[in-house]
Amino acid sequence: MNDNIHIQSSTPIRELPEPTLRRLPWYLAYVGMLKERGVEYVSSTQISKEINVDASMIAKDLSFLNIRGKTRIGYEVSVLDHELQDFLGFKRGHNAVMIGVGSLGASLISDSGLVNYGLRIVAGFDINPEVVDTSICDVPIYDMKHFSKLIPSLNAEIGIIAVPIHVAQQVSDTLVEAGIKALWNFTPFRITAPEGIVITNTSIYAHLAVMYNRLGLQSTLRK
Amino acid sequence: MNDNIHIQSSTPIRELPEPTLRRLPWYLAYVGMLKERGVEYVSSTQISKEINVDASMIAKDLSFLNIRGKTRIGYEVSVLDHELQDFLGFKRGHNAVMIGVGSLGASLISDSGLVNYGLRIVAGFDINPEVVDTSICDVPIYDMKHFSKLIPSLNAEIGIIAVPIHVAQQVSDTLVEAGIKALWNFTPFRITAPEGIVITNTSIYAHLAVMYNRLGLQSTLRK
Repeated sequence: MNDNIHIQSSTPIRELPEPTLRRLPWYLAYVGMLKERGVEYVSSTQISKEINVDASMIAKDLSFLNIRGKTRIGYEVSVLDHELQDFLGFKRGHNAVMIGVGSLGASLISDSGLVNYGLRIVAGFDINPEVVDTSICDVPIYDMKHFSKLIPSLNAEIGIIAVPIHVAQQVSDTLVEAGIKALWNFTPFRITAPEGIVITNTSIYAHLAVMYNRLGLQSTLRK
Repeated sequence: MNDNIHIQSSTPIRELPEPTLRRLPWYLAYVGMLKERGVEYVSSTQISKEINVDASMIAKDLSFLNIRGKTRIGYEVSVLDHELQDFLGFKRGHNAVMIGVGSLGASLISDSGLVNYGLRIVAGFDINPEVVDTSICDVPIYDMKHFSKLIPSLNAEIGIIAVPIHVAQQVSDTLVEAGIKALWNFTPFRITAPEGIVITNTSIYAHLAVMYNRLGLQSTLRK
C-alpha cells in the first residue's frame, strides 16, 4: 500500500502506484465477465469476494480513475469496464519490436492474446541466419544489423527483449540509442537504461523459483 | 525487505521471502555468465553494479543459502552457480500439465526455455475439438473431460492455467480435486484454492498496463 500517493491532476495520464496498476487488469477481467453476463451493477465487496482482494483496496484503486460507486448499488458495470479499458490503454495500439526470435520470442510473436491488450508486434530481429528473412504469423524477421536503419519506418516505441542473457545489456543499449522508449525485458538479466526509459521486467522463470520452493515446503509438511 | 525473517533450520527446504526468491534467478543469470567467461571470484559489490541491486541486499539474499563470501575476494563463482542452481531446483525435473491450449498455452508448450528451468510440460488439455487429440512439439493434447482419469498416469504436480477467464476458477477447482498441488495462473483472473495449494500468478498482460502508463507519462514529460 502506498498511502502517501495521492495525485491531483487534470492531465490525462497520472502516475499510479505500480501495485494499483497491476491490480486494475484483475478488476477489468472480472468486470468484463460480468458485462458479458449482462450484470448491471457491482459493489467493491462483490469484486472483493470474487477475486480475493480487500474491498477497501479496490475502492481506493478505482478512486484513481475518478469512478465513484453509488451507495448500496455499487459501480455501473458498463462504465467501470469502459473506464478501465480506456485508462489501461489496452484498446489503443502500441507498436513493438521483438528482439531475439528464439523459442520464447517466437512464442510471444505467435501469442495473439497480446493484440487484445493493445500490443502489436510489427517486426522481429535476430542474428540467426535460420530465422532472419523469414516471418512468423505474418510478422517479418529482420537481421539485427539493420535495426537502426529499419526502426524509423516501424513507428515502434516498445522493444521486447528475449535474447540470451550475455547480450541483454548490449541489445538494450542499441535499442535506446535507436530511440526505443520502453524495454520489456523477458531475460533474467537486470538491464539498466538512462533515466526516462521505461523498463518492465517479466521474469517468467523467476516465478518458477517461487513455485518450486513453495511446492517443496508443502510436500515437506505433508510428510 | 523482510528484516524480521531469519530462518534457522536444518531441513533441505526453507521458506524464503518471495522477493528474495525472485531475485535469486537474477544472480544465477549473472553468475552463470561469469562462469562461462571463466571468472573465478565475484563480490556482492560487483554483482550489485552489474544488475542494479543493492550490495547489502545481495549479501543478505545469499546468506539464506549458507554461502559465505571471503573478505576481499568475494564468492567463488562455481560454488555460487552450483548452490543457486541446486537451491532453485531448475536442474530437477517438475512435471506439469497445460490447461488451455489456445494461443498462449500453445506458445508456452513450444517454449523450450521452460525445460531449462526444470519445467516439463507432459500433456495439454482443452475442450476445443480442433486441438484435442493433436500434439504440439510432441506434447499430446487431450480432451479436458478425461482430465481426472488421465492425471494419475501423468505424475504431474503442477497445473498451468491459460484458459478464458470465465472458466479459470472452475478449471482450478477441477485440478485441485484431481490432486494438483501447484497452480501457475496465466489468466488475469485471481483464482482461489484451499490452503496448502501453491498459487503463482504470472500476469503478462498486467505488466503491459504498467508499461503503457509509464510510457504515457514519459511522453507527457517530453512534450
